[in-house]
Amino acid sequence: MNNPLKPKLQTPIIIVNFKTYSEATGRKAVELAKKAEKVSKETNVNIAVAPQFADIATVAEAVEIPVFAQHIDPITPGSYTGHVLAESVKEAGATGTLINHSERQLKLSDIDAAIKLAREKGLVSCVCANNPSISAAAAALKPDIVSIEPPELIGTGIAVSKAQPEVVTNTVKLVREVNAKVTILCGAGISHGEDVAVALKLGTQGVLVASGIVKAKDPYSILREFAEATKQ
Amino acid sequence: MNNPLKPKLQTPIIIVNFKTYSEATGRKAVELAKKAEKVSKETNVNIAVAPQFADIATVAEAVEIPVFAQHIDPITPGSYTGHVLAESVKEAGATGTLINHSERQLKLSDIDAAIKLAREKGLVSCVCANNPSISAAAAALKPDIVSIEPPELIGTGIAVSKAQPEVVTNTVKLVREVNAKVTILCGAGISHGEDVAVALKLGTQGVLVASGIVKAKDPYSILREFAEATKQ
Amino acid sequence: MNNPLKPKLQTPIIIVNFKTYSEATGRKAVELAKKAEKVSKETNVNIAVAPQFADIATVAEAVEIPVFAQHIDPITPGSYTGHVLAESVKEAGATGTLINHSERQLKLSDIDAAIKLAREKGLVSCVCANNPSISAAAAALKPDIVSIEPPELIGTGIAVSKAQPEVVTNTVKLVREVNAKVTILCGAGISHGEDVAVALKLGTQGVLVASGIVKAKDPYSILREFAEATKQ
Amino acid sequence: MNNPLKPKLQTPIIIVNFKTYSEATGRKAVELAKKAEKVSKETNVNIAVAPQFADIATVAEAVEIPVFAQHIDPITPGSYTGHVLAESVKEAGATGTLINHSERQLKLSDIDAAIKLAREKGLVSCVCANNPSISAAAAALKPDIVSIEPPELIGTGIAVSKAQPEVVTNTVKLVREVNAKVTILCGAGISHGEDVAVALKLGTQGVLVASGIVKAKDPYSILREFAEATKQ
Repeated sequence: MNNPLKPKLQTPIIIVNFKTYSEATGRKAVELAKKAEKVSKETNVNIAVAPQFADIATVAEAVEIPVFAQHIDPITPGSYTGHVLAESVKEAGATGTLINHSERQLKLSDIDAAIKLAREKGLVSCVCANNPSISAAAAALKPDIVSIEPPELIGTGIAVSKAQPEVVTNTVKLVREVNAKVTILCGAGISHGEDVAVALKLGTQGVLVASGIVKAKDPYSILREFAEATKQ
Repeated sequence: MNNPLKPKLQTPIIIVNFKTYSEATGRKAVELAKKAEKVSKETNVNIAVAPQFADIATVAEAVEIPVFAQHIDPITPGSYTGHVLAESVKEAGATGTLINHSERQLKLSDIDAAIKLAREKGLVSCVCANNPSISAAAAALKPDIVSIEPPELIGTGIAVSKAQPEVVTNTVKLVREVNAKVTILCGAGISHGEDVAVALKLGTQGVLVASGIVKAKDPYSILREFAEATKQ
Repeated sequence: MNNPLKPKLQTPIIIVNFKTYSEATGRKAVELAKKAEKVSKETNVNIAVAPQFADIATVAEAVEIPVFAQHIDPITPGSYTGHVLAESVKEAGATGTLINHSERQLKLSDIDAAIKLAREKGLVSCVCANNPSISAAAAALKPDIVSIEPPELIGTGIAVSKAQPEVVTNTVKLVREVNAKVTILCGAGISHGEDVAVALKLGTQGVLVASGIVKAKDPYSILREFAEATKQ
Repeated sequence: MNNPLKPKLQTPIIIVNFKTYSEATGRKAVELAKKAEKVSKETNVNIAVAPQFADIATVAEAVEIPVFAQHIDPITPGSYTGHVLAESVKEAGATGTLINHSERQLKLSDIDAAIKLAREKGLVSCVCANNPSISAAAAALKPDIVSIEPPELIGTGIAVSKAQPEVVTNTVKLVREVNAKVTILCGAGISHGEDVAVALKLGTQGVLVASGIVKAKDPYSILREFAEATKQ
C-alpha cells in the first residue's frame, strides 16, 4: 500500500495554493515559489507550493521545496485528452497533489480513486473538505492530508481558525474518530501569523493558504510570519 | 436533527430500483409497484420501489408501500430549472430517496447536502457506494442507509453477496467502525433468493435490486422468493 | 425525420417555466397550470407550462394546454438511475421539453442528442441559449424552438426585450442565417405585457417566462396581460 | 475582435494530440515533439503538437513548431483552483488550444466562452465535434478550426475519411453553410498517408491525429508519410 518513492510528510506544513491568480502565473509563479523556498530554508518549516499545471515543471526546476499539483484526475494513461494524469504531474516534478478543492470538486468515487492513484504513484494526497462531516468522510478514504476549508470564508481574510474555531475543533474530533494518523490542515481566510498559531493550537498540523500570501503586498514577509507562528 | 415526519425504517428491506427501464416506465411502473406491494403484504417484508421522477405521483397514488426517488439535487426551492427538489418528490408521495447511485454520482459535498436535505424534509436517505472504503466515507455522513454496489457486477446476474462476499463483509466492518446505526444494504447481480439470504448472513439488513426483478419474466415470483429469503 | 405524433407548434407561444419555485410545486403547480389554461382558453393564445418532473403527470391530467418537461437526458431506456427519460415524461403527459436551460446546461453533443430524441419521441424541443452566437449554434442543430435568455437578466424583472433589444434583434439575425424555420423566443425579466409586445416586434414568436408569472401576486392577471399583448 | 498576437494559421495542418498516453508523457513528450518538428522542417508542412498541460513548457522550450493545449477552461484569472487558464498555457508556450475534444466535452456556453478567450489571448482555437450537425453548431461560434471526429472511430485505425467519407463531406457542406472561413479538420482512425490525402480531397484542410502517430512503432516515418500526403 505504501510507496517508498513517496516523500515523508514533514509537519507542521504550510501549503500555498497559487490558484489561477495572475500574481502567481508563469514567471510570477516561479518568483513566488522562490520566496516560499527562502522562508522555508530560513525557518526550517515545511512549505509547499501548488502552482497551475502548466507551471509545475518550471517551478519544480527552480525550487527544492515540495510542489503540489492543484488536482489530478482519477485516470491511468490512455485516451483522456485534456485531463490531468498523476504520472504527468509527477514527472514534471510534483511530489503531492490537492484533491477535491472546493473550486474543483469531485464525485466521491473519484476522490477515492484519486487518493489511491496518488498513493501508487508516490504523490502526497491532500483532500479538501467543506465542513467537519465531509472532512470525516474524506478521512475515511485514508489520504495523507485532510484540509478543512469552509467555502464561505475563502478569500475573505476572515480566518477560519479565529472566526469559527468550533469548525476546526469539531473537524479534528470527527476526523480522529475515523482516522488516527491523517494530517489535518485548515484553510480559508488565513492572513496573519496568529491565525496559523491558533490553527495549530486547535489541533491541526498546518494550514492551506492562497490569497493571504499570493495577493499580499509582501508575500515573503507574511509567509515568514506564518512560518514563525508555527513555532509558537 | 431528526424529523418526526420521517417514516421509521423497517428492516430487512428490499428496495427495487426501476432505473429507466422500459419495463418499469409509466403504466408499467404502476403495475410493477403493485406486484411489489402484493409481495410485501403477503410476506410482511418491507419492500420499497424507486420509479422515475415522472412516475412517483402515479405509483405513490397506486400503492401503500414506500416509494423512493432515484435521486434528489442538493437544492432548496428557487431557480433550479430541470433539477429535482426534495419537497417536490416528497409532495408527489416519495418517502425516501436514493443518493449517489453509481449511475448518478454526486460530488462529496453534494452527497452531504442531499443527506441533510432528506433528513430535514423527512425522506429516508439511501446513499449508494462503489466499494468498502467509499461506503465508510458515506456512512460518516450519517445517512439512514448505505448500499454497497460494485459497479462491475451491476446488471450481470452475478450476485455480489456470492461472488464477492469479502466485499460485503469488509464493507460491514469498515462502515461499523464509523457508524454503529446506519442500515447497510448490498446490491449488484442479486437474482436469487439465496443471494438475498447470503447478503443478510454477511451482516447487511437488506438488498437494493434492479434488473433481477424488473427484467425477470415473472417479477412477482422472484420478488416473493427474495422476500421469503429474508426470513431464513 | 418528422414524427407524426408531435403536436404542431402554434405561435405566438408563451411558455411558463415553473422552475423549482415553491409557488409552483405539487398542488400549487396544478393550480397555476389551471390559471394558465384559463387564460389560454379565454384569449386563444398558446400557453404552455413547464412544471417539475414529479408534477408532470398531475398537471397534464388536470389541464389541456401543452406541458413541457424542464429537461430530458440524452438517453434511451436502460440503466440510467436518476436520469430523465424522454419516454417517461412523454407517457406522463408532456408534449415538449426545455433543453439546456441556463440553470441546467448540457454539453454540446448532449444538446444534439436530446433534440434528436425529442424529435423521435414526438416532443417539441425548446433549446435555451445565453447569447446570440450560442442561439445560432443551437439553431444549427434544428430544434423546434430556440429561446434566448441572457442569464444576467433572469429573475431581475428587467426585460431583455426592453433593456437589451439589440440582443434580441441580433439573435434573430444570426439564427435566421442558419435556420429559416425555427421558432424564436426570448426570456429573462419579462414582467409586463409591453415586454411581450416588444419581444414580438423585434422578431420573436413568443416568450419564455418564469418569476414574472410564478412569483406574481396575481399570476392570472399578468398572464392574461401577456396573452393580450401578443395580439398587438 | 482579432488579436495581432495570434499566429496566422498555415494550412494544411496536422495536429498531433498526445492525449494522456504514456508514450507521450514527460520526457517522451519532448522526444515526440522533436520528431514532429523534424518532419515539419523537412517537408515544410505545418505540424502542431498537443501535449499534456504539465508538458507544455518543456515541449515549447524544445521545439519551434506550434504547441496546442488540450483544453482551456472558460475562466479569467482568479479563484479557480485546478482549472486551466488561457494565460497560463499561453505563457508556458502554447499558441493554440483544443476545445471540446470528445474526451473533454464542454457545455455549449463554455465552448463559446473558451473560443472568445482564445481569441482575446491570441490562441488558435480548434473546436472538436462528434458529427456534422455539431460541427456546424461549433462553426457558428466562429472558432479558427473545427475538427470532426466520430467518437466511435477514435483509436480504431479505421479512418473516418475512408470509412465514412460522407460524414466528412456532409460536415464540410453544413459547416460552410454557416461559416465560410473556418478551417476544417477531420480525425479518428487516421493511420496512413492515404487517409490524409483523402481527407484533403473531401474538402478538409488537415487532420487531427493521436494514436496513429503516438502509438506507432516509428512515429517519425508515419508522420512523414502524413506530411507528404498533404501535397498530393
